Amino acid sequence: MPDLKFQDGLIPVIVQDAKSREVLMMAYASEKAVRLTRETGFAHYYSRSRKKLWKKGEESGHFQKVERILTDCDDDCLIYEVVQTGAACHMGYASCFYRTLDGNVVGTKVFDPEKVYKKPGR
Amino acid sequence: MPDLKFQDGLIPVIVQDAKSREVLMMAYASEKAVRLTRETGFAHYYSRSRKKLWKKGEESGHFQKVERILTDCDDDCLIYEVVQTGAACHMGYASCFYRTLDGNVVGTKVFDPEKVYKKPGR
Repeated sequence: MPDLKFQDGLIPVIVQDAKSREVLMMAYASEKAVRLTRETGFAHYYSRSRKKLWKKGEESGHFQKVERILTDCDDDCLIYEVVQTGAACHMGYASCFYRTLDGNVVGTKVFDPEKVYKKPGR
Repeated sequence: MPDLKFQDGLIPVIVQDAKSREVLMMAYASEKAVRLTRETGFAHYYSRSRKKLWKKGEESGHFQKVERILTDCDDDCLIYEVVQTGAACHMGYASCFYRTLDGNVVGTKVFDPEKVYKKPGR
């Protein structure tokens, strides 16, 4: 395994749908999160706002089965290629990238966040 | 335009091939880099190591024509959807993500970096 370059203990992870190739989200992983992802086959990250390790889907049930992990030329960024249950975005869209910079909504809404999370918009 | 959240003046940018949907690279943009990208239609970034704004391709000729910019639900990460001239990676691969975390090379080599850059591996 390459010697990954963590910055302040974290490495950015791009999450891509293994089949559609849609980019679903971007998150950060600690060394432990990367290890747990490899060991369990399910995506783990580190939340900078909540300051804790998290398994994607632990609250929503929207897990990410990781089919492959790629590293970049500098070993300072990863891609998790995943099979997504439900949707990646806590706003209910398939991808977190559901808007253009001009403000147009171009993504697909998959679920109602109020029904999945205890409080809307988390 | 959404109120983008820059951290230490920068926002991470995922660069995706507009046609093949391959993720080509990840880089950071300053507010000025985002503005220049929108104004010129060509990808601009901010190099943290060189501490300067750069236009992708200014040295290699491998420019990125930006077809669309997406922002994520938190407005703290962007996707540039691009038409890539040549290849994105300075190592000569189409994508910077040309290896699995297990060390297998899975990407396609497009050019010889020694012939494109003054010094190999830059």
